[in-house]
Amino acid sequence: MNLPLGFEYSTTYAGLRKVAKDDLALIVSDRPAAAAAVFTKNVVAAAPVKLARQHLAASNGIARAILINAGNANCATKTGERVALTTCNALAKALNIPLAQVLPASTGVIGVELDSSKITDALPQLVDGLSETKFEDVSRAILTTDLVQKVADATVKTRSGSVRIAGCTKGSGMIHPNMATTLGFVVTDAAIPAKRLHKMLKSGIARSYNRITVDGDTSTNDMVAVLANGASGLKLDARGLERFEAALGDVLESLAKQIARDGEGAKKLVTIDVTGAQSDHDAERIGRSIANSPLVKTAVAGADPNWGRIICAAGYSGASFDPTKVDILFQGVLVCKSGLAVDFDEAALITKLSESEIKIDFKLRGGGKSKTRFWTCDFTEGYIEINGHYRT
Amino acid sequence: MNLPLGFEYSTTYAGLRKVAKDDLALIVSDRPAAAAAVFTKNVVAAAPVKLARQHLAASNGIARAILINAGNANCATKTGERVALTTCNALAKALNIPLAQVLPASTGVIGVELDSSKITDALPQLVDGLSETKFEDVSRAILTTDLVQKVADATVKTRSGSVRIAGCTKGSGMIHPNMATTLGFVVTDAAIPAKRLHKMLKSGIARSYNRITVDGDTSTNDMVAVLANGASGLKLDARGLERFEAALGDVLESLAKQIARDGEGAKKLVTIDVTGAQSDHDAERIGRSIANSPLVKTAVAGADPNWGRIICAAGYSGASFDPTKVDILFQGVLVCKSGLAVDFDEAALITKLSESEIKIDFKLRGGGKSKTRFWTCDFTEGYIEINGHYRT
Repeated sequence: MNLPLGFEYSTTYAGLRKVAKDDLALIVSDRPAAAAAVFTKNVVAAAPVKLARQHLAASNGIARAILINAGNANCATKTGERVALTTCNALAKALNIPLAQVLPASTGVIGVELDSSKITDALPQLVDGLSETKFEDVSRAILTTDLVQKVADATVKTRSGSVRIAGCTKGSGMIHPNMATTLGFVVTDAAIPAKRLHKMLKSGIARSYNRITVDGDTSTNDMVAVLANGASGLKLDARGLERFEAALGDVLESLAKQIARDGEGAKKLVTIDVTGAQSDHDAERIGRSIANSPLVKTAVAGADPNWGRIICAAGYSGASFDPTKVDILFQGVLVCKSGLAVDFDEAALITKLSESEIKIDFKLRGGGKSKTRFWTCDFTEGYIEINGHYRT
Repeated sequence: MNLPLGFEYSTTYAGLRKVAKDDLALIVSDRPAAAAAVFTKNVVAAAPVKLARQHLAASNGIARAILINAGNANCATKTGERVALTTCNALAKALNIPLAQVLPASTGVIGVELDSSKITDALPQLVDGLSETKFEDVSRAILTTDLVQKVADATVKTRSGSVRIAGCTKGSGMIHPNMATTLGFVVTDAAIPAKRLHKMLKSGIARSYNRITVDGDTSTNDMVAVLANGASGLKLDARGLERFEAALGDVLESLAKQIARDGEGAKKLVTIDVTGAQSDHDAERIGRSIANSPLVKTAVAGADPNWGRIICAAGYSGASFDPTKVDILFQGVLVCKSGLAVDFDEAALITKLSESEIKIDFKLRGGGKSKTRFWTCDFTEGYIEINGHYRT
């Protein structure tokens, strides 16, 4: 990976997970960085989510460090808010930076007290270990039920030189991908004012994370944050900023797709394109309903050309459309025309559905102009195995 | 079962299923019966749903027969409407009754042409086989992925004598129970005018089928119908009608709970009580969100006391509530008080969660008066096995 300048990373095992695998991660910028983040819309927000929001407000969008733990969500416990504050405070002291410039994030089980001393005791070692090269260590330490680490990077070439973007993420909910906690951290050495950065992040999230998940339908701990520290020394002009925004969007899209692909137990990435809807809202309802349909996802897992489940999911999505104007392509094969079954070579389609990338095209032919794309994964026995004994 | 007077039943194998198990069922009243039905709200409605609606309208709520097939949904095919009409017409001729007094219903795979001659060829044998005692044969012939037959009956004692109600149903969707087709058929020898019957059915459905399923979030073929033929010869007074309505509601509730319990691969029935919500709508959103949460359902399957998933599901339900005023009992054990974890005996709760009936109480203590009850089932590996190869 081509990492941005001016950031250091570290991880250690603080004893929060049962297995001795790093569960505490730190990202530090060598100078105050513009910071922006988007958070869960769940009514029940974990203590670190609340504190990170407060810190971003208090610092006017400036941060120096992100402190992340896996193994415990620090949510719905008596001491949660104190734990978040104590650990951020200890880190601020260790790094000699303002408290409000530390952003906390947690993922893991809800409702189990988190012993803050496990984190504070591990901080000296964590800080000692800071290194410019350990970005991927962070990407691994934040994982919970994920099977693979997820990173993406981009180099943006402008007339005055290059800036770098690197991101990592965790999350692998399966049926509603949104139900497992999603964390994402992106760092860049571009200089972007915090407000502009926030706008770019929101627009990037809309076409990436929000296409594998559902607005307002999120875990207690979800958070995606970006730090821009300007260590490249470059000043981007309007065109450079545009290129940066596009590259940031691509990094976010790559991270989101990696989450979809790494659904718990999943073996296939499914891309769903909806076109011709009467409104963006209708397009999204249809795409989300198909993406979330366990019957569609089990059919994909079993390479079963049961396209009726696709039109059924669209039908109960709440979107209004004329079912006689629906065409459906399943892995490129026309299976439904004008809402009706068409003949297709079933054996050939079964073979195609055994591939690892699956495509569903849901085309409305009533003259609508709205479209959307969603990503999801297939739904296999592995999901139950992973989620049936998460806490115990 | 104590079956109502004046009805006959028959089943046969018409070759619609791959396995040689009865797939065609018939219910006939010996006289015109008041008829009422509720149907799917899916934008994509199967041909038999559309035709049954038309027939009920054309006959002013009078029916003599219900013709049901499993193995093919007769939905989204070129010939679907013709097939529904042809088969109803053939039955009307065979029974010498008006076409509009035949209600069709289908369940099975979507988008595969249904050969009407398979049904019409089987009709003579089906009609020949009519018998007053074969109600349970019907309950078995309509099953698809269900593991068990589902019937319920009631005898309503009034001052002038008794009337009888018998019902059967199919359906066993697992994650969103609504996504597998639900069919339900209830017969009674009470005399109830069609309009009144429709009102009773709707109110009974609201507290039964709609508590395992989601309004507007239904399969292409869903239908619950009730026939009241008056063969008891009794005239119910106001009090008798009230008792009848309550008993009809109980039959519907029993059938709905049997569907929840028979979720594909399920081993446990989960009852979710939500109390203290600010509005009925909020209570329902919370109950439905918990009932539909695959993470809650896998935790129940694994006897994992991971109650954080319950509050998380409530939090993204869209209902507004104060998370600091939430108490949660999991199998009668207080696990969350005022939104925070409480100490509980984890080993003891794991043992309790191994029982076959599981209870979740979600109590809002902010002074709201609205409550609701939902039923669902646990979510096991069996679901994927059943649904991954349904069509192939």
